[in-house]
Parts: sequence; structure tokens; C-alpha cells
Amino acid sequence: MNGNSFGVLFRVTTWGESHGPATGAVIDGCPAGVPLSEADFLPVMAKRQGGQGTHSTPRKESDTVAIESGVFEGLTTGTPIALRIVNENVKSSDYEEFRHVPRPGHADITTFWKEGHRDHRGGGRASARETAARVAAGVVAGKILKGVDVVGFVSRVGDTSVTPPESLSEAKTLAEHHPLRLPVKGASPLDTRVEQARECGDSLGGSVTCWVAGLPRGLGEPVFDKVNSVLAHALMSLPAATAVEIGGGIPLSMLPGSEVRDPIRKVEGQVRVDGPKHGGLLGGITTGERLAVTVHFHAPTSVPLAVESVNLQTGTQETVTVKGRHDSFPLPRAVPMVEAMVKIALADLWLRK
Amino acid sequence: MNGNSFGVLFRVTTWGESHGPATGAVIDGCPAGVPLSEADFLPVMAKRQGGQGTHSTPRKESDTVAIESGVFEGLTTGTPIALRIVNENVKSSDYEEFRHVPRPGHADITTFWKEGHRDHRGGGRASARETAARVAAGVVAGKILKGVDVVGFVSRVGDTSVTPPESLSEAKTLAEHHPLRLPVKGASPLDTRVEQARECGDSLGGSVTCWVAGLPRGLGEPVFDKVNSVLAHALMSLPAATAVEIGGGIPLSMLPGSEVRDPIRKVEGQVRVDGPKHGGLLGGITTGERLAVTVHFHAPTSVPLAVESVNLQTGTQETVTVKGRHDSFPLPRAVPMVEAMVKIALADLWLRK
Amino acid sequence: MNGNSFGVLFRVTTWGESHGPATGAVIDGCPAGVPLSEADFLPVMAKRQGGQGTHSTPRKESDTVAIESGVFEGLTTGTPIALRIVNENVKSSDYEEFRHVPRPGHADITTFWKEGHRDHRGGGRASARETAARVAAGVVAGKILKGVDVVGFVSRVGDTSVTPPESLSEAKTLAEHHPLRLPVKGASPLDTRVEQARECGDSLGGSVTCWVAGLPRGLGEPVFDKVNSVLAHALMSLPAATAVEIGGGIPLSMLPGSEVRDPIRKVEGQVRVDGPKHGGLLGGITTGERLAVTVHFHAPTSVPLAVESVNLQTGTQETVTVKGRHDSFPLPRAVPMVEAMVKIALADLWLRK
Amino acid sequence: MNGNSFGVLFRVTTWGESHGPATGAVIDGCPAGVPLSEADFLPVMAKRQGGQGTHSTPRKESDTVAIESGVFEGLTTGTPIALRIVNENVKSSDYEEFRHVPRPGHADITTFWKEGHRDHRGGGRASARETAARVAAGVVAGKILKGVDVVGFVSRVGDTSVTPPESLSEAKTLAEHHPLRLPVKGASPLDTRVEQARECGDSLGGSVTCWVAGLPRGLGEPVFDKVNSVLAHALMSLPAATAVEIGGGIPLSMLPGSEVRDPIRKVEGQVRVDGPKHGGLLGGITTGERLAVTVHFHAPTSVPLAVESVNLQTGTQETVTVKGRHDSFPLPRAVPMVEAMVKIALADLWLRK
Repeated sequence: MNGNSFGVLFRVTTWGESHGPATGAVIDGCPAGVPLSEADFLPVMAKRQGGQGTHSTPRKESDTVAIESGVFEGLTTGTPIALRIVNENVKSSDYEEFRHVPRPGHADITTFWKEGHRDHRGGGRASARETAARVAAGVVAGKILKGVDVVGFVSRVGDTSVTPPESLSEAKTLAEHHPLRLPVKGASPLDTRVEQARECGDSLGGSVTCWVAGLPRGLGEPVFDKVNSVLAHALMSLPAATAVEIGGGIPLSMLPGSEVRDPIRKVEGQVRVDGPKHGGLLGGITTGERLAVTVHFHAPTSVPLAVESVNLQTGTQETVTVKGRHDSFPLPRAVPMVEAMVKIALADLWLRK
Repeated sequence: MNGNSFGVLFRVTTWGESHGPATGAVIDGCPAGVPLSEADFLPVMAKRQGGQGTHSTPRKESDTVAIESGVFEGLTTGTPIALRIVNENVKSSDYEEFRHVPRPGHADITTFWKEGHRDHRGGGRASARETAARVAAGVVAGKILKGVDVVGFVSRVGDTSVTPPESLSEAKTLAEHHPLRLPVKGASPLDTRVEQARECGDSLGGSVTCWVAGLPRGLGEPVFDKVNSVLAHALMSLPAATAVEIGGGIPLSMLPGSEVRDPIRKVEGQVRVDGPKHGGLLGGITTGERLAVTVHFHAPTSVPLAVESVNLQTGTQETVTVKGRHDSFPLPRAVPMVEAMVKIALADLWLRK
Repeated sequence: MNGNSFGVLFRVTTWGESHGPATGAVIDGCPAGVPLSEADFLPVMAKRQGGQGTHSTPRKESDTVAIESGVFEGLTTGTPIALRIVNENVKSSDYEEFRHVPRPGHADITTFWKEGHRDHRGGGRASARETAARVAAGVVAGKILKGVDVVGFVSRVGDTSVTPPESLSEAKTLAEHHPLRLPVKGASPLDTRVEQARECGDSLGGSVTCWVAGLPRGLGEPVFDKVNSVLAHALMSLPAATAVEIGGGIPLSMLPGSEVRDPIRKVEGQVRVDGPKHGGLLGGITTGERLAVTVHFHAPTSVPLAVESVNLQTGTQETVTVKGRHDSFPLPRAVPMVEAMVKIALADLWLRK
Repeated sequence: MNGNSFGVLFRVTTWGESHGPATGAVIDGCPAGVPLSEADFLPVMAKRQGGQGTHSTPRKESDTVAIESGVFEGLTTGTPIALRIVNENVKSSDYEEFRHVPRPGHADITTFWKEGHRDHRGGGRASARETAARVAAGVVAGKILKGVDVVGFVSRVGDTSVTPPESLSEAKTLAEHHPLRLPVKGASPLDTRVEQARECGDSLGGSVTCWVAGLPRGLGEPVFDKVNSVLAHALMSLPAATAVEIGGGIPLSMLPGSEVRDPIRKVEGQVRVDGPKHGGLLGGITTGERLAVTVHFHAPTSVPLAVESVNLQTGTQETVTVKGRHDSFPLPRAVPMVEAMVKIALADLWLRK
């Protein structure tokens, strides 16, 4: 097993290279009787496509998800769900110059060092194309999380953070309508920032925050498979992720211990952890309060600005410029990826409970 | 499997409650022929004990690690290595008042919600006591990582960060000699800060940074089991961890894409990723350069300052004060835990390669 | 994970229902640099199709295996190998009468009891159709087992056993040329037996024996993952398998201890386990001698002879006759399935070594 | 992971060498709230000890099982259950002559070939001593299988089979009272057979059959983790196992297809698979009828009759005689081992359901 599977009971295995014939996922462990159709995938696959703004990749694909196993007459059967997405609009010739010259800031050189033989076209398996399969699998995971609301939004652009509203439903609505998936209303100075980066041929990173409401209490396995650890694993596996914060994150770690504790109180007759500091988790197990997680992504390194590399065949030092078709600010497209990985991680812990 | 195991090929399973008779680890997958003796565990177990400063818990135990399987005549045999540490100096009476009243900021209430029946003494399995077994397992993991140097130090106290020296060996020496495991020379204003917190009956959190030098190229599995994800999983499973940064971390995510890329250059005849930005990782696979990871921990919540809780048996609202024997600044003791989890994670990826 | 994956490091996940659009396998863990093309699958897929004799199913499909991931320019890349086989010649109408009436001797009723909702067409996932994916995966496994010869043949028809020749290569040649995959030359009285069963509308079971030569010493994991146990797991998972014998099998278990032991001798300067009794295994680990395993299969239960069942919708007792298109003696087709599972199991232990 | 763990959700990891300080098991996945005490282990550990007859090993140990984790105030807590059994009465000097001379018919030589370095004393980890931990773990597994009756008995001695009574409870009572665990009343000619083997310094193998009543319907995972395959894996991992038959086993595989099918009938208002042929399983999933499995064991090879071996240090051919303290007919002691592995396998499938 070379790391292409995630989960113990809700187990997702993805396959497919950027410029291969197709990409897909096999999900083993989805219970029987869950309604599922190919139409269920359309909205989220479109969300992953991005495309509203000029900052987004011009590589457009229909990204229709075909269900090839595990669903009969509209309901899952408990057998493996095989999802398949045909790769379209592949321009492999863009990559011929990188066959022997690894792109700096990419997995090219490490994949070569690791395997010796690699598919250099479009980053092969290390391409963000692989996340299409994750996003599709996240749709199935989401069906298991009954009554749970998973809402992601862009919470930072470059070095500028955005303060979301308190309300989850409000943040959801705002982000859905904002081209950059910011939880704000109307135009923002950040739109300009992104546009400027694009015009300079440069790119920007930032953060995606994800909130989860409606989780039952008692989810998560103590010690190694805390909700915290499983989420960290899932989210740090996304391309370009550099940090993951759970609950109060880094700010919480700056407070004295006396201020870290949310009190336990009876609220409307129910015992609750009454406060936001622990982000819905204590000892790695859900409290039933809102869960919060933030993932930080570095800016895409595929920018048309020259950088040094080495031709691994000839050994000569070269200067490369990655043209291709790339995002200048891919974080809006990362939002559904983060949501998908959160759903996949939680669906697995849900079934393990 | 309820999350008490970590790793695929170098698989560590820990067991034991804080106030049970013993705690331990079983390691399945250590190759045969590795020299290992009970004396190997002494220095690191002492490091985890802390105890040099007044900030550290007064619960002292000898923490002798007994090898009960897997070693014959000084060498491992490839069979499971069973490590066992007897619990001493247990004062369970300290916890009788928390039998039905969960301590806020602890796993007490979520463990109850999850399992219904729990060992309330000393936090049971959610106690930091469990990390003794991890630290012991880390010693075995370290033996597999030939030529690798894993160096941790405290890089932040409360809200104040510390700048480490450039050199790994210098940072190592400084931290080893500093009572707070800071990579600085002599007394620091932070010593006073910690002392003040302790005097107020309060506690502090902060960060531990860990550097790894000497890793071979090509370690790590693409997609879900990137070095990044496996480290994030391992480290976020430590008690009180709130965030994990890999490589350039959050600062890297603020830069434009053109500045994110370390160039690939021939250095002394060898092709190398020439720069620190990727923290020794590209696409989740090691480049052979120095790996860097930072874990953020919130302050301990066991502070003798009153906080509200609810008696789960009677349903009455109460005010609790956690006295016990606790650290005001446990991060020096977290250093060997971080180092152990880094070693365990890397040993597994090492054997999977 | 609902049991649709096999293996730890060479991990095969199969998917697909008998009457769905396609069936397939994802293999995670095949090393990079292994030559693999779609043509490699043709001979063994044809072998699984059977079709030489009248005893074999009239459902014929081209069973072309498409490689959709993991191979680039003729060599594996270390990424997941996705294999896909389109289902053709599906006659689902044959099964409409069994939608609510489970066929006795089939998984119909237990699948219903387990899942509540099932694909009744052609046995769904419990169909022997699923083994097409295993046979395809076995081709990849076989590429890993360099220098290893895996040879299966039918060793019993109904209640009559067949004595194979001593030589593995001779057995191989004979079985390959015999329509029933018997390791004998020319026509045999068993041919008539099979023909008679078919004419009566009945079917026959029997045994498949598999020999493996050329294995390295030291393969297999002590205790739970002995070669013996992993092979037993793999082979007992084949449809209709009722028993697995490893090495000397049941006859060996009848001998006194003094006759069970193969002596250890120096043979041509090399220390060897000199005899066939242990079937190439001691303590679950390979000795380098020829490995032998036999799988016993009951006769197919899809025979056009009436049997009682119950309509699960109406609750009425009924009499059913399974017509469909079925084998009267499927063991020749089971030979490549046994070979495939042996290869998959050994490839995994090979990589775990 | 080197094969010392078994199970997905009810996961047993055993550790310990024959002549090490202790042996034990860690069980991860036992739910909270199960009553468990150290006294629960006494009867079955005594059963494994054997000792009633002269055929049994003179190595006697108290085999007290200490619970070191996972139980609080008489109930399991959902944390790992650590079981530990101290090794007593170890006579390592018996084995000094086999340090460099592997015993034929044992794992000595393959362990050496596999690992290079091994604990030669008493077979090290390949000793039947390891099964003490399995038997202890089986006690915990049995607690999960509420309403389930697991009954094992010796069904063959050497080449002579014994016909058990129809009734499970009768077979249970008979076997419990018979020194050889035969399901027969009073003295049997087989007692003499065993006694003769012992007097000749030889040993006998045979079979153990295990029946399971009271299983719920729908247990077992289709495809690779059928009840059949998981049981075959579990049972073939026992020392000296040479074959496993599930349900009707080999006799069933001799029948024509028309006779293989148990009809489906309404019995007292309930739909049932009405017959014994499928041994409680269809398509690898339980029908709720009685499950039957038989394991065949070869005779112990530790008999004081000379056999050839080679001194691996000097390279000289030698003749060895294994004296030690061994069983001439260990199958009565294998009965609790078979029962334990059946319970462990079923407990895992139970929790996976």
C-alpha cells in the first residue's frame, strides 16, 4: 500500500494521473441503502472547477462522475463504489520540456528520486487533478454524515486575513456567492490583490477555514486517531498545504492555561462544553459543539517567471519558465477539496464509532 | 482497532492508563539485528521526566523500560518488541472528586460521552502518562534511522517566539543545556515569564520545533501518506497540540508563488533542492535537505484556578479547582515526545520505502 | 473497509457487479519500473474465460483489460494501477425472477440479510464475474515474482483424484493442453464424467492444486501472517471454496511425528530442507523448496434442477429452477483464479520481506 | 507490521518468546462496559495447559493472566486491554545444542534464513507458547459474542476419525470430560493408540472440529473477508496446521451440484437455510445456522528419534535427537487454541458488521 488509500472503515482509494485516460476513486465501506446518483456530483465538481474568475485555470473539463459499481436502482448496496472521471482537454505537449528538467517547487524531482520512472506530463499523479477523485469521494462521505453541515471558505489571501461572520449559515451563503469564496459581502480589496498577482504572472497562497456543525458527541479515537490527528493527516495531504490548525489553533496556544478552558455548563437542560476554544474537541473526541479547522496553502509554484533547474539527463544547469495553464489563486478551488477531506475523515470516524 | 496503533510497517501500539499498574508499547516491524538494551532508554526517559525546573510536575517515577520480547543477546530478532514501564508514585485519591465531575479543558467529559464507563484517575488513558510509551518506542525508531539527526527545541513560550541558531548541532547543544529547552544561551526573560505563571498558579503553552537532518531522498508516499501528512497525524495526536506546520509553514503561505520556489542546482556535483523553503519536502517526499516541523501546544488546563463544571451523576452545576501535581510549562517535556513521534513516523516511512 | 481489498504492501482492491457497466481492480503498491502492457493480460483472461469445452459457460466476453493509471511508456510508475474490464453480453432479464426469490446455494439470501438492498442480477458482487478483476491483478503480481513459476491444474473431478507427474514443467504442459486442465495426457474417463453431468443438467466440483517453484527463502511472517495463513485466506475467498490444504495437507496430518520431518541436508554444498513433506514451508516461512497448495471447490449450484426457496416479498414457499448460462464443471476456469490468488498473496509477502 | 496482529476492529497483537520473561497480548477494539476479570481466564488457560494425561507436556506453568490496562472496576473501558503471562519453568539449557543446529520439522532454519539472528531457546516466538496469548485473547473475544456457543473437540486421532453426536451441547459435554477431548463416552481404542505412540517416543496428529451456534445472520464481508477466509487465515496460523475445511468441506466438494444446495424454507414462520451442507455460510456470510470448521494438524516433530540436520556454524552434517519436554499428542491442547482463534475471528467480523 503506497499511500493511495485513506480511512479504516470508510476507505477511499484514488487512482489516475493528470494526463492519463481517466482518474477515479474506489470507496470501500459505504453502508447499503444510501441514495446516490451521478447528478449528486455535479454541483461540487463544478465548484472544484472554479472558473468564475480570471484567476482560475483555463483547463476546463466536464468532470462528469460515472458510478461504475456499488449503486443499484438509486441506492448504495454496500459493495465498493467505483467512481470514474474521464480526463479531457489534456495538453501533454505543454510538458515535453519538463521530461528531464524538474520544475522547482514541484514533486517532479522527488518523484524521480523515489521511483526512477515517472509520468512527467502535468505532474502525473502529484497533479491537483488527483483531487477531483477526492472531491467526488467527499460527496459520498457527506451522505453518511446525516445532519452535519460542513462549510469551508477562504479565510486568508496572501498575508491578509478575513474575519468571517459568527454564523455558519451566513458564512456559507457569503462564500458561495463570492468569486474568491471569501465570507464577505461584495467587492473586497483582496479581489484587486489577486488580480494584480495574476497580471504580474505571479500567484498567491492563503488559508481555507472549515467549520462543521451538527456532529454527534463521542466521535474520534483516543491516542493516535483523535479527530485532530485524522483531520491533520487528511488535510496536510492536500497539495501545497503547509500547516493545519485545529480548534483554537495557534492563538489558543498563546493563552495562559486558565483562559484555555471552556466551562462545562447546563444549557437548556443539557450538559455542554460552553465555549468555542476547544473547537468542538476535547482529548481528540467531539463535544458536539462546532468544529473548526484551518489549512494554510502556499501559492502555486507554476508561475511564468524564470527559475533555475537542472536537466537530469544531461546534467546541465538550465533556466525554466512554467507556462502551462495554471491558477494564480487556486484557494477558491481548494475550498471543496478541504470540505471533501473533512467529510471523508469524519465519515470514517463516524463509522468507527 | 480503536486508534491505539500508529504506522504501517513500523507499527507501535501503546497501552496503559495513568493510574493502572503499568504502561507500555508493542512494536511490530522492527527489523532483526538492531542493537537494543534497556540502558538505551534511560537518557530519553529522563528527558521526558523533566524535573530540572520548578515548572515541572512533582510526580517523579523511575520510568525504567523493561524489554519483555523481541531482543535476544543484545540484538532485535524481528519479533515484536514489548516495552513495559511500571507506574509508580500514583496518587489516585487526588482524583476521587473528579469521578463524576469532568475537568473542563480535559478529555474527561468526551471520554464519558464516548464510552460510558471510564477510568477517571489521572485522566486514565488520555493522561500525558501515555506518552511515556511513545517516547520509549521512539528510541527503537531512532535506531532504524541510521545517520539521521532528530533535534527538537522549544521555539515559543506563551506568545514569545525564540529564534534558533542556523546550525542544527548548535541548536541541539543549546537546547540540551537550557532548563526550558530553549535554543539560547544563558538566562532569558522567558525563564521569568514561566516562573511568574507558576507563581500565579497558571500555566503556559508554546511551540516545539523539530529539525531532521540526514534523511535519504525519496522517503514518503504520494497522495495520502506524504511525509507531511504522516508527521501531521503523528504530531497532532500529542496531548494539547493545536497546530502543526511543515516546512515553511504559515509564513511560506504568505509569499507569492515566485518566491515559494527553491531552485534546483548542482552543488558540488550533486543535484540539490537549494534552499530552505520547502523544509526538505516536495510533493510530500524528502529532498534530502533538512526537514523542519513545528507543533503548537496550548497551555495545560490543570491549573488550580476555579472553573465551572457539572456533576454528571447529580446534574448540579459545580465549581472545580484542579490541584493534583501538574506542570506550569510542560513544553520542555514535550520536546522528547515530539522527537519520538517524528522518529516513529519517519521509521515507518523508511521501512515502507 | 468491507473486505474488498487484499494485501498489506501489494494491495488489490476489486470493484464491480456482474451486471454493472464494468468491473476492475486498483493495485496499490506495485513498484515502479515493471514492464506492463494491456497485451500481458490477454492469455490469462482467455484462460479464465474457458470456452474450449461444452462444460463451460456460454457467456462470452472479450475481457479486454484497460490500464487507466500507473503505467507510463510501458513501465509501471509506482502509482496505483487501475485495471478496468467492461462487462459485455449481460442478460439481466434472466435474473428478474430471482429479484425476490433467493437462489438456494447462493449468496442471494445472505446478501439480502446483510445489506437489505442488493443487486440481484447475476449474483451482483458475489458473482464469479468478480474474479475477472482478481485474475487481472494476478498478472501484475506475477511480474513481481521474478524467477517464480506458479502452476495450477485440476487434481480432482467429483470424487476422483488425478495423480500429477512429479515434474512441475511436465504438469504445466499437460494441464495447458488438456481441456479440463488435468495434468494428464490424452482423453480420460473424467471427460466422460463431466459430459454426463452436463447432460443431466447437473454439475461437478473437485480440486485445484497449485505448485510454486523458485521462491526465495525466508518469505512469510511468523504467527498470524504465515505463508500458510495468507494463502488460506486468499484461496478460501474464492467462490465455492470449501477447503484449503497447504504442503502435505491432510495426509501429512495422519503420519506419526517421526515421519513428518524432512531432514536438513547439505545438497551440492547448500543447506536444504530435503523432502516434500513440508510443502516448502516451515513455521510459515518458505524454505526455497517447491510450495504446494490444494483448494477444494463444491460443484456450482446453478443447475436447472428444481429446489425449494421462499419469495422474500410475499413470504410464499416456491420452487425455483436456475436456468441462466452456467458451467457444469468450472474448475478449469478456477485454475487461473487459484494461480492469481497465489500470486497476489506471494507478491504481498515478497514486498513485506 | 510483521504479522503479529490479527483483526481489523477487534485487533489482537501478541508478543513474547518461549523462554523470554513473559508473553502477552494487546487487544485494541474491545468495546467499553464488558465485564472482565483475571479470574475469567483461569478455566481456559488450564484447558490449554492440558496435563490430565501422560501424552501431555510436563512443562507446567501457572499461566495466570494479569490485566494491565483497559479494565476499571470490573468493566472494560474501551482502551487497549493488555494481558500479560509470566513465563515460568523455563529450561533453556535443553536448547543449547540447537543454537546452531536447526531441528528438522521446526521453524528454526527458516527463522534463521529470514532474520539472521534468532532466539533459539524453545523455538522462540514460533513456540506453541505463543498460543497462550491467543487463548487469553480468545476469552475477551468470547465476551463480545453474546449468545454464541463455540465448541471444539478432537475429531480425528492419527488416521482414525471420530463421529461426533448430532447435538452441540452433547458434543461439548462429552469432549469436556474426555482426556483426549474426543466427543465420545468412556474409554476408546484411540486412548491406546496415543499411549502406544508416546511409549515409542513418537507422536500423533489429527483434527479438531469446531462448531459455532447462535451466530446472527449477515456476519462476514463479501469477496476477500468472507467468514470462510477469515477463519481459514486465523486457523491456518496455528502451529502445525496443514488444512482447514469450512462447512461441508472436502466431502461437499465431491457431490454433484444438485445435492450441494440446502433448500430455503419457512420453518416456524421464519425463512431459513434448511440444512447443514453450507455449514452456516453462503457467499461467505452467516445464515444463522450452525457453523462448522475443521483444522488438521500434523504430529509434533519434537520426538526423541534421530534425524539429520546441519550445523549452520560449522557446516557439518549431524544427527539430532530432540528430547526436551513435549507432547506426544497435543490435540487436546489445540482445542482451546482453535476455539480462541474462531472467537477472535468472529468477534472481529461481529464488530465490523
